Amino acid sequence: MPPLYLPEDRYLDPANRDVALRLYHQVRDLPLICPHGHVDPLLFADPDYRFGSPSELFITPDHYVFRMLRSQGIALEELGIPRVDGGPVESDPRVIWQRFADHYHLFRGTPTGGWLDYSFHFVFGVEEKLTGASAQAIYDQIAACLGRPEFRPRALYEQFNVEVLTTTDAATDPLLQHEAIRRSGWSGRILPTFRPDTVVNLDTPGWRGHVGHLAEQSGIDITSYDRYLQALEQRRGFFGQMGATATDHAALTAYTEPLGQREAESLFQSALRGEASAGDARRFTGHMLIEMARMSVEDGLVMQLHVGSLRNHDPALQAGFGTDKGADIPVASEWTRNLRPLLTSFGSHPRFSLILFTLDESGYGREMAPLAGYYPAVKLGPPWWFFDSVNGMARYFDLVMETAGIYNTVGFNDDTRAFTSIPARHDVWRRTAVNWIAGLHKRGFIDMQDAEDMAQEMAVGLARRAYRFAT
Amino acid sequence: MPPLYLPEDRYLDPANRDVALRLYHQVRDLPLICPHGHVDPLLFADPDYRFGSPSELFITPDHYVFRMLRSQGIALEELGIPRVDGGPVESDPRVIWQRFADHYHLFRGTPTGGWLDYSFHFVFGVEEKLTGASAQAIYDQIAACLGRPEFRPRALYEQFNVEVLTTTDAATDPLLQHEAIRRSGWSGRILPTFRPDTVVNLDTPGWRGHVGHLAEQSGIDITSYDRYLQALEQRRGFFGQMGATATDHAALTAYTEPLGQREAESLFQSALRGEASAGDARRFTGHMLIEMARMSVEDGLVMQLHVGSLRNHDPALQAGFGTDKGADIPVASEWTRNLRPLLTSFGSHPRFSLILFTLDESGYGREMAPLAGYYPAVKLGPPWWFFDSVNGMARYFDLVMETAGIYNTVGFNDDTRAFTSIPARHDVWRRTAVNWIAGLHKRGFIDMQDAEDMAQEMAVGLARRAYRFAT
Amino acid sequence: MPPLYLPEDRYLDPANRDVALRLYHQVRDLPLICPHGHVDPLLFADPDYRFGSPSELFITPDHYVFRMLRSQGIALEELGIPRVDGGPVESDPRVIWQRFADHYHLFRGTPTGGWLDYSFHFVFGVEEKLTGASAQAIYDQIAACLGRPEFRPRALYEQFNVEVLTTTDAATDPLLQHEAIRRSGWSGRILPTFRPDTVVNLDTPGWRGHVGHLAEQSGIDITSYDRYLQALEQRRGFFGQMGATATDHAALTAYTEPLGQREAESLFQSALRGEASAGDARRFTGHMLIEMARMSVEDGLVMQLHVGSLRNHDPALQAGFGTDKGADIPVASEWTRNLRPLLTSFGSHPRFSLILFTLDESGYGREMAPLAGYYPAVKLGPPWWFFDSVNGMARYFDLVMETAGIYNTVGFNDDTRAFTSIPARHDVWRRTAVNWIAGLHKRGFIDMQDAEDMAQEMAVGLARRAYRFAT
Repeated sequence: MPPLYLPEDRYLDPANRDVALRLYHQVRDLPLICPHGHVDPLLFADPDYRFGSPSELFITPDHYVFRMLRSQGIALEELGIPRVDGGPVESDPRVIWQRFADHYHLFRGTPTGGWLDYSFHFVFGVEEKLTGASAQAIYDQIAACLGRPEFRPRALYEQFNVEVLTTTDAATDPLLQHEAIRRSGWSGRILPTFRPDTVVNLDTPGWRGHVGHLAEQSGIDITSYDRYLQALEQRRGFFGQMGATATDHAALTAYTEPLGQREAESLFQSALRGEASAGDARRFTGHMLIEMARMSVEDGLVMQLHVGSLRNHDPALQAGFGTDKGADIPVASEWTRNLRPLLTSFGSHPRFSLILFTLDESGYGREMAPLAGYYPAVKLGPPWWFFDSVNGMARYFDLVMETAGIYNTVGFNDDTRAFTSIPARHDVWRRTAVNWIAGLHKRGFIDMQDAEDMAQEMAVGLARRAYRFAT
Repeated sequence: MPPLYLPEDRYLDPANRDVALRLYHQVRDLPLICPHGHVDPLLFADPDYRFGSPSELFITPDHYVFRMLRSQGIALEELGIPRVDGGPVESDPRVIWQRFADHYHLFRGTPTGGWLDYSFHFVFGVEEKLTGASAQAIYDQIAACLGRPEFRPRALYEQFNVEVLTTTDAATDPLLQHEAIRRSGWSGRILPTFRPDTVVNLDTPGWRGHVGHLAEQSGIDITSYDRYLQALEQRRGFFGQMGATATDHAALTAYTEPLGQREAESLFQSALRGEASAGDARRFTGHMLIEMARMSVEDGLVMQLHVGSLRNHDPALQAGFGTDKGADIPVASEWTRNLRPLLTSFGSHPRFSLILFTLDESGYGREMAPLAGYYPAVKLGPPWWFFDSVNGMARYFDLVMETAGIYNTVGFNDDTRAFTSIPARHDVWRRTAVNWIAGLHKRGFIDMQDAEDMAQEMAVGLARRAYRFAT
Repeated sequence: MPPLYLPEDRYLDPANRDVALRLYHQVRDLPLICPHGHVDPLLFADPDYRFGSPSELFITPDHYVFRMLRSQGIALEELGIPRVDGGPVESDPRVIWQRFADHYHLFRGTPTGGWLDYSFHFVFGVEEKLTGASAQAIYDQIAACLGRPEFRPRALYEQFNVEVLTTTDAATDPLLQHEAIRRSGWSGRILPTFRPDTVVNLDTPGWRGHVGHLAEQSGIDITSYDRYLQALEQRRGFFGQMGATATDHAALTAYTEPLGQREAESLFQSALRGEASAGDARRFTGHMLIEMARMSVEDGLVMQLHVGSLRNHDPALQAGFGTDKGADIPVASEWTRNLRPLLTSFGSHPRFSLILFTLDESGYGREMAPLAGYYPAVKLGPPWWFFDSVNGMARYFDLVMETAGIYNTVGFNDDTRAFTSIPARHDVWRRTAVNWIAGLHKRGFIDMQDAEDMAQEMAVGLARRAYRFAT
């Protein structure tokens, strides 16, 4: 069997290797700061939570993995992805694992391939390369690990040296799991993040139902726009009491527009009657982004904005398997004009912090870095999603840092549902960052002291401060 | 005389050189797969076809060459490019060659310069660098070669080790040259490609004439939209019988929109009456792309789509010298929204294959790779035209492969009119590909076995399978 | 105190270092050609001109510096930036300098940091790294220099080995400083550049006042569009007599549209009445770009076009501190369609030269290089503003040169207000250019003779010829 290939100096340019390794050894074992992600808090609320089979851990929940297999003609049913209609899908995890292993070459040179290999080896002790031939033996080895107590999520949290991990939670979420974690006395730090998209984006399917849920959770009867704002403020306050330091907002575009009180009320009432048009939704959502900035100024929650994903590109996938299944496709994004109204109001406010995430790299140097290099409130989030990769990070460093400097960026976000992939993802960031910093030193931009400071900042300092985590 | 500079390790990064050369030696001599291009089939239909003078071979037919000379103030007339009005142009090939050589420095660091040097040396045995001083001696050397039988196109086809070469042919082409090649018993494999732009893009000048021609060739009286579709299906069938495995479609944008039968008929009838507007043309063409996808599902022809070239930017050039003379300029291209209707219908169909080509690199990572990494039908063609270059390929690998993986790409297309440049172009691709793969290995992404497999795939395997060439 | 870090081989890739240094030593000491910039001619008109304090030299006039400090929460008042309302701001230059030094880490890895370090060391002899601790000693050292005669601008001009330096001057400027320089008999070559934006862009605040000023300066009573053109032609003639070889035009977009005489007159009269709409302004400005091209054909002034900066993004900054204070943010730019009307008229005229500058790098390879590689008149300016950096230049070389070749580019522009930073900026260009050329040689694209020629061209030859400076 060929061995897994994970050389110690991976992802480093040969020309930078000596300095990069020196910096890497300084940051490799620093705690993991996880300020944005999608891990289910249930993993930590239940001290005896057990991951399922290797296939349930690595394949069926991970759209990075199954979208790639699907793109080469393997039906999602063959991979055990549950159908919305409950129709039959493959249920034998060993069969699913074998299919995955038989096609593992598809992940050559991809970030997914790198994360998987890292997890196989450093989390589960696998030594062989995954192939059709080694598939069942590796399955056995991972399955055996998953049965042991040291592979429960809380144990892994400690083994991974996580300092803080945030989840992403609907505005209407009662945060019962977070409550259970706090009450349990466990020392891990799992914090919620306030994500109000379903009640703020008028074009969300079932928006009125979500607003009803918001009314319930907040205890405020939402009959007017004012009460709607109060309900949102109430929930933000509750999230803050539960430890949240940030909000998160997803939008197709960064469009912002301040509406007058009367117009906001009128659009809101239309929406309550189910009569809002697409144009209304765009304007109301654009207005609510400004309102959210205003609330952030008041309650101190850091505001995150993820822009540019066209969700559910394939209606057949959505009908068959639901949302978040790999068919969210980026579109071009504009920031300079779209964010101007919001920034005119709050961009220079000392209490406000706005972290931007994009799927359109053409905006990095053209719009985002110039905005971050001027407005005190604006900072740039790390490469997101398809761009959370060695090349994606290298381009981000190349395109952003000369204009914005590293201090207008916020370090790394792992942004993952896959808890066991978290160390792998941070390792990619830390390696790619020290490689970039080493290149700056090797080419005479910065001295070694600056290089060492920057490596620390990019590994932990920037994220801790940007997300206002007291340490 | 300074020698031609073509070091054995050219285009390889010094840091990757040892591994890259090892991979290169494994793929250098593999057969050339040429699945998309514009070589005239007459070259092979006539066993005694002779290229003209060196200037007629290298300068007058090659808009890559003469657009660059023009950009520095040399009139096309001085280069012997024929005028539409038959007006006087330089007719002495030695004078033209001297002008070209006197300005050969313009090609420093360009792909055209590299292709030319490769052809001079490896095809014609030239040892000196082309300069004003060496011009006439090199002319003599090439002219002497062109007189010899081993420089006939069929002989070169064999010497170049071409496995298959496709041409690009109008839907209305009777494929007489292809017929002659088949009948001649020659073993070379020259296949047609079905390109219906002139009958499908309503805004083609003379569209009605082309439809008339289509009627003639298909033997179907095109009085209705239905009969128009039948005629197209008939021609596709004929191309398939003649060995075609693919179609090709050029459009200013990737816009697709399904029209109802009644609306399609009505637009078609307007067009037949010469009354179609620009908006009608856009919608009808967008509809026909979907129809072509439907036909591909039925007849198995792979569908290629080239998007984003604004043709004939300079009206004076078009009036003076005709089309395809170097003034086709790219525009930004959108894929996510534009292709959605087509992909909703056919993107997951197991018989359908759609290969995308762009002139807007900003879409590689943002839209194209995510689409290819999800839809089974979508694959990405190699860098096209201005981007068929060492840097263009490096950017393509960097931007596409992490998200789509190599298996959602299709290897190389030389896409050239210039038959003698084909080995040079494949050599650039093979070198640039092994350099990228070697970099992945050197930086710890893939082991050597993966590297060797990927090098084979990128040289021949991907192209053979994507274009359904039985080997 | 840690030393300043400026290694001799800075900005060079280790793999290219030997060849790059060899080329660098050939171009390092060549004269500086400065064909586009914003240095105040007063520096040279007054032979006894003295720079103020180190803070007045390096911080308060340089928006690159104070925008970055502002982005991290330091108010412009704390940096001594004068308020429009004359309100109080920090006035002690030592306090300002200390604030700057305390935050000097913000400039790590940025071009501003590199320019500053170069100037500190090579202009003022500073040996220590600027930190909070070394701040006052370095202040003293620079202040002492500034008191000495060899730090007057004329002396520095000679010490810097400037061959020619152009300023940028309003169409209505009487060029009194330039006149004084000429009369003084000093041998320095300071040339004006004709910049008519305030009289050509109808949406300039106070446009009518500027046209009034134009009438005064030209001595032509501007009552009609024809007289307006005459006045512009008169001013261009005057600039030409004063040594100008070029004009410069800034526009939000590259939109061009030829208007008929009647329509131009009618829009002009609306504007004189203060009744022009935003759409009118767009069309008139687009028309005037074509008129300016026509005048360039007639008077031989090279035309520069800077596109894509949205000025004054933050209204509070503009109200508080005025224009050009770091809140000009780029937007996406389109060239292929926008420039077509202008190029249809003049793009192939042998006397016309049009140099394009962008803030949207996505257009480099997609639109700008193809246009420059076809139209004899079109050339590409170097990376501008945020992109005037090591990475910005590397991307420019990577994206432009394969399609356009270096001979359709124009070398370097320092484009700066900060006279003492000029050698630093040219040094970055020369290093980055030789590094790129050395990479071409090392990877087998060009032989050493070509490399040496290209290095000379990129340092001085291209700029001299493109701007028609007789040498």
